[in-house]
Amino acid sequence: MDEIVSPVAVVDEDKCRRNIRHMVTKAKKAHVAFRPHFKTHQSIAIGKWFREAGTEKIAVSSVIMAEYFATDNWQDIMIAFPVNIREISKINELASRIRIGILIADSHIVESLVQKLTAALDFYIKIDVGSHRTGFSPDVMVPIENTLNQAKANGNLRFKGFVAHAGHTYQTRSLNDVQKIFKEGAGALAKLTNYFRKDYPEIIASWGDTPSCSLMNEFPGIDEIRPGNFVFYDLMQYHLASCDWNHIAMVVAAPVVARHPERNEIVLYGGAVHLSKDFIDLDDEQLIYGECVKFTERGWERFSKPVYVKRLSQEHGIVACPEEYFDDFCPGSLIGVVPVHSCLAADLIGRYYEITEGKFLEA
Amino acid sequence: MDEIVSPVAVVDEDKCRRNIRHMVTKAKKAHVAFRPHFKTHQSIAIGKWFREAGTEKIAVSSVIMAEYFATDNWQDIMIAFPVNIREISKINELASRIRIGILIADSHIVESLVQKLTAALDFYIKIDVGSHRTGFSPDVMVPIENTLNQAKANGNLRFKGFVAHAGHTYQTRSLNDVQKIFKEGAGALAKLTNYFRKDYPEIIASWGDTPSCSLMNEFPGIDEIRPGNFVFYDLMQYHLASCDWNHIAMVVAAPVVARHPERNEIVLYGGAVHLSKDFIDLDDEQLIYGECVKFTERGWERFSKPVYVKRLSQEHGIVACPEEYFDDFCPGSLIGVVPVHSCLAADLIGRYYEITEGKFLEA
Repeated sequence: MDEIVSPVAVVDEDKCRRNIRHMVTKAKKAHVAFRPHFKTHQSIAIGKWFREAGTEKIAVSSVIMAEYFATDNWQDIMIAFPVNIREISKINELASRIRIGILIADSHIVESLVQKLTAALDFYIKIDVGSHRTGFSPDVMVPIENTLNQAKANGNLRFKGFVAHAGHTYQTRSLNDVQKIFKEGAGALAKLTNYFRKDYPEIIASWGDTPSCSLMNEFPGIDEIRPGNFVFYDLMQYHLASCDWNHIAMVVAAPVVARHPERNEIVLYGGAVHLSKDFIDLDDEQLIYGECVKFTERGWERFSKPVYVKRLSQEHGIVACPEEYFDDFCPGSLIGVVPVHSCLAADLIGRYYEITEGKFLEA
Repeated sequence: MDEIVSPVAVVDEDKCRRNIRHMVTKAKKAHVAFRPHFKTHQSIAIGKWFREAGTEKIAVSSVIMAEYFATDNWQDIMIAFPVNIREISKINELASRIRIGILIADSHIVESLVQKLTAALDFYIKIDVGSHRTGFSPDVMVPIENTLNQAKANGNLRFKGFVAHAGHTYQTRSLNDVQKIFKEGAGALAKLTNYFRKDYPEIIASWGDTPSCSLMNEFPGIDEIRPGNFVFYDLMQYHLASCDWNHIAMVVAAPVVARHPERNEIVLYGGAVHLSKDFIDLDDEQLIYGECVKFTERGWERFSKPVYVKRLSQEHGIVACPEEYFDDFCPGSLIGVVPVHSCLAADLIGRYYEITEGKFLEA
C-alpha cells in the first residue's frame, strides 16, 4: 500500500460483491425488482460489479450522477430526488437517449414540467411514509389525483408509480422498530398503489433505505427495492445492526502524522473533508466520527477494544488511542477508519483503492 | 442567475476584496507579516484577488493544495499541517522549485525526514497553545531541542520558527475569551521563540485562526498571521461575533424543489454534500445547518426573521420557513444559504459564481 500517500477510500471487492449478491438474491426470492442506489459509491468501476451481478436499472440522487453513469451505458436511471426544474435541459437531453425516471414531490412543479419537457420519461410520485423529509401524504388522494391530471397535458410524462424512502429507519435501535416502520410505511404505499391501479394498471410501489432492505426478507405489497448504502455499509449501519462487522466493505486509509502519548491521542491525515462531520452519539454521550482498524496483508481487522476518531477538523482526525495500541500508529503508517457514513465519505474522497488486488480503481 | 442549475458557492467579489484589504491593512499596521490560509477558498481565481492586494506568501493545509497553487506561480507556500512523510516525493519535487514550509508536530518524524529530504525547505515546529489538536508543549524545552538537534543532520532542513493555531477560539462566546486565549497562547509562543533566538536569530512566531485575527488589532510578540476563513466568513464566525453580517462574502445557491405548507417546511437541492454536516447549536438547543437569504439583483439579503436550514441529508436541505416567507421559496427558484462553515462548503462544492458581475469563476 505504499502507493497510498493521502486519504483514499479502500474497498474490499470480495466483500462488496458479496453484499451485492446477497441483495440480488434476496430481491429475487422476495419477487421484487432491484434498482440499487448508486449515490453511495458514485463509481463506474463499482457499478460494473453490479452489472456483472445482473443489475440493469439503477437509482441516483442527482442529474449530474445520471449523466455520469449514462457515460458507462446505464440505460435505465431513476433520479431519486424531487425534480429540479432548473436542470430541465439536461433532463431532456438524457431522456432523449436513455430511460429516465424523475420524482414529483410537489404539485407546483408540474406546470413547468408540462411546459418544458420535450422527451418521454417515467415519473413517480414521491410519498412521505413518515420520515417527513418530502413527498405527498399517502392518506390524501386529492393532491395526487390533481397532479396526475395536470401531468396528462404532456404526453411525455409517463406515470410509473409511487416511491418512498423510509429515512426514519436510521433513528431506530431494534429490528422490531424497523419492522414496524416497514409494515406501516410499505402498507400505506401498497394501498395507495393499488388504489391508483384502477386507472394505471402498470404502476409500481418502489421502496428504499438500507436498514429495512437489509433487515427484512419479504416485502409484501412492494414491487421494487432501492437500497444503496449496503454495498459498503458503515459504522452507522453496524450500530443500527443492519450489518455484521464483516459486511463492512470500505474504510478510509489515513496516514498517521503525529502521536501524543501524554494524552493518548493520535493525529491522522483524515479529517472532515474525508470522513464528513457525521457522527454517532454513543450511549455514554461520547461522539464518534469513525472507528480505526489495522490493515492486514489483504484486508483490515478490528482492534480488540474499539479505537475511535473522536474529533475532526478540516484535514485532521484525532483518535483516542489506548496505550497498548500506540505502536500500531507509527507516524508514516496507514490506519483504516470505518466511516460513520460511507456515502458521504465516498462522495468526499471520490477515489478508491481495491485492497485484495492492491490497485486503484479507475473511476 | 439562470445559469445556476445546481448548488454552487456564490461569492461577492467586492466583499471578499474588502475582507482581504481589511486584513492586509491590519497586518501592516500591527507590523506582522501576512500569510493567508488558502484552504478556505482553494481557488486560483480568488487567490489572484489576494495577489492584487499585495500577498506573496500563503498557507495551505495539504500537499495537494500546494501543488495546485504552485501551478499559478505562488512561490512561497507553507503546508500548515503536520508533515506527512508518505508524501515526501511530492514535497521534494515542490521544494526543488519553490519555497516550501512544512510543520513538524512529532519528533518521531524527523528521522525519516532527515533520510528522505532531497531539497531545501523551511521547517516550523508546531506548538500546542491550548487547542490540544497537535503540536509540542510550549513549556517543555527538551523535546524541541532534541528535534532541532536531530534536524541538523540534513542541511536541507532550515529551521524557520514556531507555528500555532488557536482552534479553541471557536469555542468562545465573547471578545474577552478570545483576548484571553490570544494573550496566553501568543504570549507562550513569543516567549518560546525568544528563547530559541539565541541560537536561531531569524526565526519567527506564526499565529493562525480567524476569530483572533479578526477581533484583535495588535499581535504583540507575533511575527506573522495566517487567517483563512475571513475571506468569506460564515454563520459560525457571525455567531462568534468575528464578523458583521455584511462581511459574509459567500453563500451557497440552492434550488428550491418542494414546499410543505402543512408543516412550514421547504426542501432545497442543497444537502450534506454541499453544506457539510457542520452545525451550530443555538441556545435553545435547536441545531442549524445554515441560514437562508434572498437573492437580490446583485447580492443577497437576510429575511427579517432568521430562516434556518434545520435538517440535512445527502442532497436535501430542509428549511423551517415561517408562513409569511413561503412565496419567496417557489419551486424552481434559487435560495441562498449562508453555510455554517464556509471552508467545508467551499471544499465540497469546488466552484464559484461571482454575483456582482454575474459569471462563474474559472478555477
